[in-house]
Amino acid sequence: MHILVTNDDGITAPGLLALAQGMARFGEVSVLAPDHDWSGGGHVKTLRRPLRVRRVRLADGAYALTSDGAPSDCVALGLMGLLPRKVDLIVSGINPAANLGHDVTYSGTVTAVMEGIIWGTPGIALSLDGGDLDASELDYTPAVAVAAQVVESFMRHGLPKGVFLNVNVPNEPLHRIRGICQTRQGLRVYRDRLDRRTDPRGRDYYWIAGDRPTGIPKEGTDIGALAEGYASVTPLKLDLTAYEALDTMKDWEWEPQPALWANGHRDTAIAY
Amino acid sequence: MHILVTNDDGITAPGLLALAQGMARFGEVSVLAPDHDWSGGGHVKTLRRPLRVRRVRLADGAYALTSDGAPSDCVALGLMGLLPRKVDLIVSGINPAANLGHDVTYSGTVTAVMEGIIWGTPGIALSLDGGDLDASELDYTPAVAVAAQVVESFMRHGLPKGVFLNVNVPNEPLHRIRGICQTRQGLRVYRDRLDRRTDPRGRDYYWIAGDRPTGIPKEGTDIGALAEGYASVTPLKLDLTAYEALDTMKDWEWEPQPALWANGHRDTAIAY
Repeated sequence: MHILVTNDDGITAPGLLALAQGMARFGEVSVLAPDHDWSGGGHVKTLRRPLRVRRVRLADGAYALTSDGAPSDCVALGLMGLLPRKVDLIVSGINPAANLGHDVTYSGTVTAVMEGIIWGTPGIALSLDGGDLDASELDYTPAVAVAAQVVESFMRHGLPKGVFLNVNVPNEPLHRIRGICQTRQGLRVYRDRLDRRTDPRGRDYYWIAGDRPTGIPKEGTDIGALAEGYASVTPLKLDLTAYEALDTMKDWEWEPQPALWANGHRDTAIAY
Repeated sequence: MHILVTNDDGITAPGLLALAQGMARFGEVSVLAPDHDWSGGGHVKTLRRPLRVRRVRLADGAYALTSDGAPSDCVALGLMGLLPRKVDLIVSGINPAANLGHDVTYSGTVTAVMEGIIWGTPGIALSLDGGDLDASELDYTPAVAVAAQVVESFMRHGLPKGVFLNVNVPNEPLHRIRGICQTRQGLRVYRDRLDRRTDPRGRDYYWIAGDRPTGIPKEGTDIGALAEGYASVTPLKLDLTAYEALDTMKDWEWEPQPALWANGHRDTAIAY
């Protein structure tokens, strides 16, 4: 098996090294990761500038590749032929903070794996619920153990076409993790707020500030599993259709409405 | 009704102006859009740098706001309090190319609306199937008419909590558009390929190149509707759980596997 290991925190992140080392038992490992931190960077396809790729050495001396593209660009580069061998599995992480609930569309860790699905290659995103701790302070061993078990199951059972996994692991020693749960995506509660400041030249600027998101720890969800001390495995897909809404929207006006199809014109000023 | 109009092509895009003008009939319109093109930029939350906001005038003289953040940052700024009044609806576009199938997680047009959902504000993403035409060559009138009809239906019926709309309009005169169809997300077929070049200093760089994506024009899907000459309205949500996979994955190994939970160590070199 040929495994592509990537992340969104950049090539020097300790979670990347731990994951690359942990995957080595399953076959050939190639590392291709961004040259800087892309956290919160979303599912990117870089089309307006070219991408650079460099060969570097990880902290344990192994060779790896790094690119100035997003995590999803790294995966695209790898699958489009930069890696000479076909990739069988993409493993992304280990992110030093959880990716739960609605985090999945923001998360570079998860969107790297989404890009694999676009290309028909299965993938697993891995995150450690490190909270406010710095990435360098975390012990990635428990997350690597969970990753190993999930990869082993993947190798035995496979995944349905188009399905990828979002794995989150509590920040606890291995013997205190109660097990692994299959979950659905829960509800994140974001606590962002606007922080307006004035620069030394008297001009305003804005930080997206606030507190770390919480979530609703409902049973059966990713957030609920972590709250109970379990690692969480959520199968995700790229079909975002709200199928239940298709039914409630049947009563909408679908026939052309001549009054509305007339040319619009601005009859009130655009205000701010 | 207070409508926030944004896009991913930037504040000077003709599709933004057409949409802002078309929305004016429904109430107060605020425009807050990126200061440059973010196409393919994904669902971004900019946390590592502050954001700037400037007041500018659109081509018709109306005031608007522009930020150096992503489309999703613009929406977050607006909803976090930069706009003094509560926003009732976010309308994003009009993108000069279709956003169909798997495009939705890449698309700044769509992810701007996703950000609204995070904040509990409903939204509609609008795209015109302009193909290879330049944004300045397109007639946005038909797309504005479809947008007006969809907004009118939204005002009458509302949307289920957490559901947003992805609207795509054929690039045809209004009388040639056959109507509006409710659809599910279809299957995009991407045709990207790697284009390796050498710079004047002898170093390699890579473009994500290739052809415009096609898709499988299956009946009932967004891609199918456009292929038949209809505008497409797809209800989307942010729950990506692959519920059908939860069942097939029941047989996976969920109990801790001691052999796998042992410390991993690198027994093969990381190769490239």
